[in-house]
Amino acid sequence: MFADGIYEVIPVYHGNPFRLNDHLNRLQYCLEQIKLTSPYSSEQWQTIIEQLIERNGGGHMSIYLQVTRGVHDERDHLYKENITPTVLLMASPLTVAEQPLTSCKATLLADTRWQHCDIKSIALLGNIMLRNQAQAKGYDEAILHRDGKITEGTTSNVFIVNGGIVYTPPQNNYILGGITRDVIIEICHTAGVEIQQQCIHIEQLLAADEVWISSSSREISPVIQIDDKIIGHGKVGPISKTLFAEFQHFKRQLLATKSK
Amino acid sequence: MFADGIYEVIPVYHGNPFRLNDHLNRLQYCLEQIKLTSPYSSEQWQTIIEQLIERNGGGHMSIYLQVTRGVHDERDHLYKENITPTVLLMASPLTVAEQPLTSCKATLLADTRWQHCDIKSIALLGNIMLRNQAQAKGYDEAILHRDGKITEGTTSNVFIVNGGIVYTPPQNNYILGGITRDVIIEICHTAGVEIQQQCIHIEQLLAADEVWISSSSREISPVIQIDDKIIGHGKVGPISKTLFAEFQHFKRQLLATKSK
Repeated sequence: MFADGIYEVIPVYHGNPFRLNDHLNRLQYCLEQIKLTSPYSSEQWQTIIEQLIERNGGGHMSIYLQVTRGVHDERDHLYKENITPTVLLMASPLTVAEQPLTSCKATLLADTRWQHCDIKSIALLGNIMLRNQAQAKGYDEAILHRDGKITEGTTSNVFIVNGGIVYTPPQNNYILGGITRDVIIEICHTAGVEIQQQCIHIEQLLAADEVWISSSSREISPVIQIDDKIIGHGKVGPISKTLFAEFQHFKRQLLATKSK
Repeated sequence: MFADGIYEVIPVYHGNPFRLNDHLNRLQYCLEQIKLTSPYSSEQWQTIIEQLIERNGGGHMSIYLQVTRGVHDERDHLYKENITPTVLLMASPLTVAEQPLTSCKATLLADTRWQHCDIKSIALLGNIMLRNQAQAKGYDEAILHRDGKITEGTTSNVFIVNGGIVYTPPQNNYILGGITRDVIIEICHTAGVEIQQQCIHIEQLLAADEVWISSSSREISPVIQIDDKIIGHGKVGPISKTLFAEFQHFKRQLLATKSK
């Protein structure tokens, strides 16, 4: 009733949860931010997740994990003593296929969300409204900015390429540091592509040689148009292609790791 | 799961919902803001609410009304066609008593919420966090500001008195125009107290002769201290007292109106 809770979505490949420690660390960080004591230790979360995977027959799946403050008979904004957080975990089927490189179009929108976007909270109405506003305008995603500085997409992180160097906004309270964002930064390092986390202004975004958005479902999706502005002659650029190929390689390796 | 919904809390006295049209108008406004088609017409809402009151034996009660986007088997931020909004209404006991004039202490906090605070959405995490932050610091409420301009409390509206004139921030996307706020403005008019809706800066708040917060549960609660600053010599001021008395008079009249 208050959206007073946080969540994680954890992909599972061949029964192995992907970057479980990163997800559990982010979970712990978010719980601390909203002053909710974790009902389980990291080891207990792991056990629960392993059981859920086992009961669903292993294989590929997506796990949704949600912790909300708990139940009380009074509708009151004040935190109550001695209430037990409500924990929901569910597994959904996950189709794992090599994705084709799919470009997309984005629209620039003012980031009207709250100032704790680093908290993966279930209070998602702001994201939802902006995402659907983009959709209604005929775009695949909204790239958001605060006072002219790019933050992120509504369900993605943003990367640009300028003069052969990759830039992405730094992790702060205005963006949710995605796990896929981390993977891309690592891939840049291993592929010898220079990447810098720094503030990106609208002008830099629109003048970029290449732009892409990233998320666990989109992976790397090149943005070839932002509103009326064509990015990089409307074609997928070389660094996007390289990193996309590296990402697919990373995924193949991951999927080659069979269950214990 | 997305906090993609809105709500109303409607007090009922002697079986009569208080300012039902105002509540239904705000409901309609909020539904439009989040692009959710109301599942019922104003007349249908009225009938449902009347039935709920009747089934709960009439008398005094508080009605909670919530509309969320609906159920879909895919967890997706994009709006789906042809899904039916989920409607929840519940009645809770409401104790109606003449309240004593109760002063309170507030702390000033930066308003970190989103920029659509005029939408009475269930995405309340921002309000909750700020309210509990105030509580943890030993204050009854947080008075919020954006760039030095007062917006509202976490669950209340703010009024100040300066040189005999009452000021309250204007209704815009940064505040939720409370029904009690409307009542106070009307009471000012009938009591011949000048009231102006205009921007209030922090300095004006702290230098005010009187300050109070309003909400349906707090009614009019004078603020006698904001952080370390004592307001109006730490005593409830004359205009607060007058308006509190007028508010009680208003309530007595309201409660004298028996059920049809």
